Amino acid sequence: MQSKLSGWDDTIVALATPPGISAIGVIRVSGKKAISIVDELFPSKDLSKQHSHTLHVGFIKDGESKLDEVVVSLFKGPHSYTGEDIVEISCHGSPYVQQQVLQVIIKHGARIAKAGEFTQRAFLNGKLDLTQAEAVADLIASNTAASQKAAITNMRGGFSHLLKDLREQLIQFSSLLELELDFSEEDVEFADREKFTKLIENISSVVNDLLKSFRLGNVIKNGVNVAIVGRPNAGKSTLLNTLLNENRAIVSEIAGTTRDTIEEVLNINGILFRLIDTAGIREHTQDVIESMGVVRSLEKIDQADIVVYVFDVMDTTEVEFKQVIAQFEKENKQVVYVANKSDVRSSFSTDHSRKSILFISAKENTGIDKLKDQLFTMATGSQSLAENVIITNARHYEALQLLQGALAEIKTGLKEELSPELLTPDIRRSLHYLGEITGEITNEDRLDYIFSKFCIGK
Amino acid sequence: MQSKLSGWDDTIVALATPPGISAIGVIRVSGKKAISIVDELFPSKDLSKQHSHTLHVGFIKDGESKLDEVVVSLFKGPHSYTGEDIVEISCHGSPYVQQQVLQVIIKHGARIAKAGEFTQRAFLNGKLDLTQAEAVADLIASNTAASQKAAITNMRGGFSHLLKDLREQLIQFSSLLELELDFSEEDVEFADREKFTKLIENISSVVNDLLKSFRLGNVIKNGVNVAIVGRPNAGKSTLLNTLLNENRAIVSEIAGTTRDTIEEVLNINGILFRLIDTAGIREHTQDVIESMGVVRSLEKIDQADIVVYVFDVMDTTEVEFKQVIAQFEKENKQVVYVANKSDVRSSFSTDHSRKSILFISAKENTGIDKLKDQLFTMATGSQSLAENVIITNARHYEALQLLQGALAEIKTGLKEELSPELLTPDIRRSLHYLGEITGEITNEDRLDYIFSKFCIGK
Repeated sequence: MQSKLSGWDDTIVALATPPGISAIGVIRVSGKKAISIVDELFPSKDLSKQHSHTLHVGFIKDGESKLDEVVVSLFKGPHSYTGEDIVEISCHGSPYVQQQVLQVIIKHGARIAKAGEFTQRAFLNGKLDLTQAEAVADLIASNTAASQKAAITNMRGGFSHLLKDLREQLIQFSSLLELELDFSEEDVEFADREKFTKLIENISSVVNDLLKSFRLGNVIKNGVNVAIVGRPNAGKSTLLNTLLNENRAIVSEIAGTTRDTIEEVLNINGILFRLIDTAGIREHTQDVIESMGVVRSLEKIDQADIVVYVFDVMDTTEVEFKQVIAQFEKENKQVVYVANKSDVRSSFSTDHSRKSILFISAKENTGIDKLKDQLFTMATGSQSLAENVIITNARHYEALQLLQGALAEIKTGLKEELSPELLTPDIRRSLHYLGEITGEITNEDRLDYIFSKFCIGK
Repeated sequence: MQSKLSGWDDTIVALATPPGISAIGVIRVSGKKAISIVDELFPSKDLSKQHSHTLHVGFIKDGESKLDEVVVSLFKGPHSYTGEDIVEISCHGSPYVQQQVLQVIIKHGARIAKAGEFTQRAFLNGKLDLTQAEAVADLIASNTAASQKAAITNMRGGFSHLLKDLREQLIQFSSLLELELDFSEEDVEFADREKFTKLIENISSVVNDLLKSFRLGNVIKNGVNVAIVGRPNAGKSTLLNTLLNENRAIVSEIAGTTRDTIEEVLNINGILFRLIDTAGIREHTQDVIESMGVVRSLEKIDQADIVVYVFDVMDTTEVEFKQVIAQFEKENKQVVYVANKSDVRSSFSTDHSRKSILFISAKENTGIDKLKDQLFTMATGSQSLAENVIITNARHYEALQLLQGALAEIKTGLKEELSPELLTPDIRRSLHYLGEITGEITNEDRLDYIFSKFCIGK
């Protein structure tokens, strides 16, 4: 595969740190000529004679002109991220100086790396499989403890080791079946059907677990949209502030976190809940349902994965409340019913026994933790974040769904004692989908697409 | 001095790369506990047993939880930037992950570094003198070849080595003079007045050259403001575009350069010329001077270091032109007179022989190089950028001016054969100013002020 890829032999270079003024910026060079190119610009030492994994201080020079005093990190292939020789140059954090250094490296024979090209090379050199490579991008994009953890688990192999192992076993059975085809006249059975059935069931079970984990994976990776709705003065704003203020206190410890993004985001046990702005919902109306803040047509509520319905226990009749419940049931939404101002009146008796109500006081900050627990449980579907393997990638999910279909065909075929030539196509499809996930089967376009979503410099 | 500084014994940590999502981000830890703190979080290896200037791959863990897979750079003091033990942790480029790693380091006993604190420690540990430390900040802020070069020269010692040497000599003479005071009854002369006079002249000459270089240094560091003015339709916009387009072509090669900043900036031989927006100048008026685009009261022109006055050779009478010249002479501005549309008519005969006129065609792109040369010469005062030592720092300039005054006093005193007790105060002042520049004499407040202008992480 390697020889097919265009530009594979090039030595590539990119700024690996964000642009902007700072203490330092790191320029990464990878490829056959990485060491020789930097050696020409770095007269302080002969890098080719240095050990791998060492640091060297000196000047980067363009001819006689000193561009910067830098620290060079030397990683000799295959013991490097890409598997090739890598030189990282830690420059002073002036964008101008960094561009000068980049340009002189390009002048000496490297080219600017494409997005994700370093990781792509790591994959092509067998340093990472595809799910591991994808986990690198996920880790970089991670913004909660849960997404960080899922990415690191997958980066270390996660489920792809398991899938690879199952694929190997499937390949063995597949070749035994092919052998049966060669001897089809003789009606022999090389592949033990019982063991084969067990293997297929084993794979199916793993695939089902992985598919099930995707709901949680998606929540971990993309967060959950929550709409807080209710009548005016039901206490939506106070609740929002109570939820957010606690959060802010945590956030403000983290220097440099962007406030703009944070202010409407709530982190509960590592899951991000985005609080959708429901301001502007038409609240002055005669219609009961509308006046209760449940407006069917509002996109804001449609966007929400979970609706928090806040009502004032002092100010809501049981008839009204039943109408609201009925409305949400029509919408088929996950709803948390929150009875606010329970510091004033703590009971609200209705015959809505099917729906549990959380009694809180946003003002007094009581019941808020129960609300958070409820949101977390609804979002994760009671699945534990501690489970080892969680699918977070839509590409894997699609391949696993197709795989599930093919496996079902094999199972049916085995039950019906189909002949090897009828089983083989489904087995091949299964092998294909398994290989696609781990990257054992892929093509250049697909790879380019996957890696194009990475950062430059990674 | 070291013991006086608060927090000197702390181990400090900061993100050394810009905030934002990218391939990697580098967290820098410096201080006595740098290695032991990171060792607790990095179970892969015992860093205390590793050689300095080596790289180590492994996980940063908070208890059992893996935060990131990182590359650790180890610099053992005194062979490090700060002179202390330094550990740099190259994390994945997720701001969230970086904050997690920062926080766990803080939890284990480091504190967030103040702006410039790493460089301040380098200074206090004698790794850099003060002008060298200041040059580090200048290098990070540099945005042209000239500012880069000046910063690197000063970072390597530049003029501070010279000043230190002269200060040593002055100290020797000073102590000889003090000795004379002790023997004042005996009327002996330990300090050779002739040699002393020569030394003072030598120092004066160096100081004068440095002061002279400040004009250029200021231009290199801060750039030059240029206003392009003239009547409507004189060709200002075309000239601006011609100047900028050429520049853009160069700029666009540099990936990641901020366009917003660039679009009104012209780089001529490494000097930045900021083209001041003169749009909005009142152009419809009966007054000749005003109609010619020379409006005295306009702040835009007042802000300019150089004015480019563009006029249309087809459309300007000699009487008008003379009035313009007279006006600018009153303003005491540096002006380049540019006769545009010289492709149509190439002569413009006046008796303005005192003023040279550049004939250009903005449309045909002729004469533009001459204009650039003229701007460059005006800005630099014909001083060569290749001169070794250029003062770019206002703090140095002020101290050198005070030093110049003190030296003049000494010279007068020597000429008048003043007694040692009358010479000594001016010598002490001179020593003080010299020491202030290189940082041999300073105080905590002053240092804190100087370093507070640095980046965090540097």
